[in-house]
Amino acid sequence: MKPVKVAIVGYGGMGGWHAGKIAEMDKFELAGVWDIDPERLAVAKERGIHTFSSFADVLANKDVELVVVATWNDVHKPLCIEAMRAGKNVISEKPVAMSLKDLDDMIAVSKETGKLFTVHQNRRWDDDYLTMRNIVDKNTLGKVFRIESRVQGSRGIPGDWRREKGHGGGMVLDWGVHLLDQALTMNDGVKLESVWAQTTMVTNEECDDGFYCELKFANGLSYFVEVTTNNFITLPRWYILGENGSAVVEDWDLHGKMTLVHNWDKIDSVPVKAGTGISKTMAPRTDETIHDAPLETVRGDWGQYYGNIFDVLRNGAQQTVTHRQMRRCLKLIEAVFASAAQGQVIAFDEEA
Amino acid sequence: MKPVKVAIVGYGGMGGWHAGKIAEMDKFELAGVWDIDPERLAVAKERGIHTFSSFADVLANKDVELVVVATWNDVHKPLCIEAMRAGKNVISEKPVAMSLKDLDDMIAVSKETGKLFTVHQNRRWDDDYLTMRNIVDKNTLGKVFRIESRVQGSRGIPGDWRREKGHGGGMVLDWGVHLLDQALTMNDGVKLESVWAQTTMVTNEECDDGFYCELKFANGLSYFVEVTTNNFITLPRWYILGENGSAVVEDWDLHGKMTLVHNWDKIDSVPVKAGTGISKTMAPRTDETIHDAPLETVRGDWGQYYGNIFDVLRNGAQQTVTHRQMRRCLKLIEAVFASAAQGQVIAFDEEA
Repeated sequence: MKPVKVAIVGYGGMGGWHAGKIAEMDKFELAGVWDIDPERLAVAKERGIHTFSSFADVLANKDVELVVVATWNDVHKPLCIEAMRAGKNVISEKPVAMSLKDLDDMIAVSKETGKLFTVHQNRRWDDDYLTMRNIVDKNTLGKVFRIESRVQGSRGIPGDWRREKGHGGGMVLDWGVHLLDQALTMNDGVKLESVWAQTTMVTNEECDDGFYCELKFANGLSYFVEVTTNNFITLPRWYILGENGSAVVEDWDLHGKMTLVHNWDKIDSVPVKAGTGISKTMAPRTDETIHDAPLETVRGDWGQYYGNIFDVLRNGAQQTVTHRQMRRCLKLIEAVFASAAQGQVIAFDEEA
Repeated sequence: MKPVKVAIVGYGGMGGWHAGKIAEMDKFELAGVWDIDPERLAVAKERGIHTFSSFADVLANKDVELVVVATWNDVHKPLCIEAMRAGKNVISEKPVAMSLKDLDDMIAVSKETGKLFTVHQNRRWDDDYLTMRNIVDKNTLGKVFRIESRVQGSRGIPGDWRREKGHGGGMVLDWGVHLLDQALTMNDGVKLESVWAQTTMVTNEECDDGFYCELKFANGLSYFVEVTTNNFITLPRWYILGENGSAVVEDWDLHGKMTLVHNWDKIDSVPVKAGTGISKTMAPRTDETIHDAPLETVRGDWGQYYGNIFDVLRNGAQQTVTHRQMRRCLKLIEAVFASAAQGQVIAFDEEA
């Protein structure tokens, strides 16, 4: 089958990343890129990539079947809508939109035009995430009741428009949308009951530079999400508690381990000195009741994302990142902001 | 000055601990112990300690000036009140009472009788806590905006009455009361604005076996408290974030470190591979902008607790753990339970 010709709109960090990946894939072909910044266009030309003269030029090109929108967040909506109306299929970088209402407008145009419209939730294929999910899915630790998902930087929001509210900056819309999508994806059939969140503004006066969030699912799972950016010492990427064991995935390179209990009820222990007192409760288990095990690492195949896009366009497949999932994630983003602004727990409405 | 003669009521883990400590102090003298369990009385006798025949026997003893109540939590109230009415000064083990209303009844009797009435909040003298406070007080990390205080066990609630709701069991009333008192004590003049909490019941069906709690103070400090008991891998005891550095106190033995930034604005960095993508935001700082430093360890002198009791009784000093602080801590405990039960953020009323 003939490859899908792709135009990339917005040739910044992620635009460049898509261009590089597309160049490696047989099923896709890079038709060219467009950016409002002449310097970025010059970079593309230097790299031997065709550059469009305007967004209209992209849309007028009959060969372009798919447009990847990798611009500032605030212009995803008009660009995606215009592209679909011009007959193009569309992948938007995340966050797909800055509000649920905007997303609904975009989805309406997708339905109206029959064009593919989805978002690049690439982190569903991250090794660390899949390694964590595998532990949960295989019941390796017994029933998992707590997951903590943290990403911590130390340089605030480094530069450019991601610091600016008008362009959809801030960490909830940046890393947050990934970590929250991961939480929702692994609990796709499970009702999310409530959301508590707190945003931080340590290094930035305009946008949140991080947030803490507690999600409560109807199956009893307590899921914590943190993105912070003024941390000079970091906590593990994943911390997972099951009834019969715990696991840590330290980082993206999958350092970490599991500790499993094989004799839960054997809880005899000698009280430990803890500060000025003693503690029986916090005394460690004796060695014969627990053992360490290496993480069973799972490698993600991100190529499945574009593979699915190809199958949607050529073989009538269903898109992997669905409109329903996109709406749920954006609803959650709005609940995070609402909880932080109101200082209240937000009841999550799965039906809205 | 003559030593203060002490009777200990409840010769369990903490009763035995008080007895041992009192035996070491010149200013105090152990008059004897009483317990409802004959086996515990037998243990005391074996150790050459005088045993009382009943609680009435304790109260009838004219030499006994101070009664330490180290019983189940649910009987602190009647025992403390009866002891004060019999002319005894009283130290209660924590939690001092199971409700604010109960505590107010106890404080009323203290005022009515003029007898000392306080609670053994020994963990204000824990090395790890004082080491953390020293970092905050000295501004070593710049303004501290986030403190995380965790105690994690792996054996549920090990045995006895601490598993039973009727006796005031559960982890909020056990370790929680310490960690929450620490949070309040270091923010004694700062308004606590709100409380979010979630209790856990992983290993016990009757009492909470842990909780997560977020405290928001009016000075902008976000303070997290966790007590959990089914964790086979642990996170650090303290995690502290300041504007110009982070610190970790790993454990009660004060392993840990600080990492300080001496050139915050130099944030150039090379994007890192992070899962299936790249990240500029989460790329680490270059080495020349940060440096590690050892923790400045602070050793607590728990003897100051009993030293203050002596000074109150002999020299007219003010008690260190005040009625106001005891009420504030119990109000917070009630807010934690209320937040967990209602699934809501509780506005904290400092004036109630």
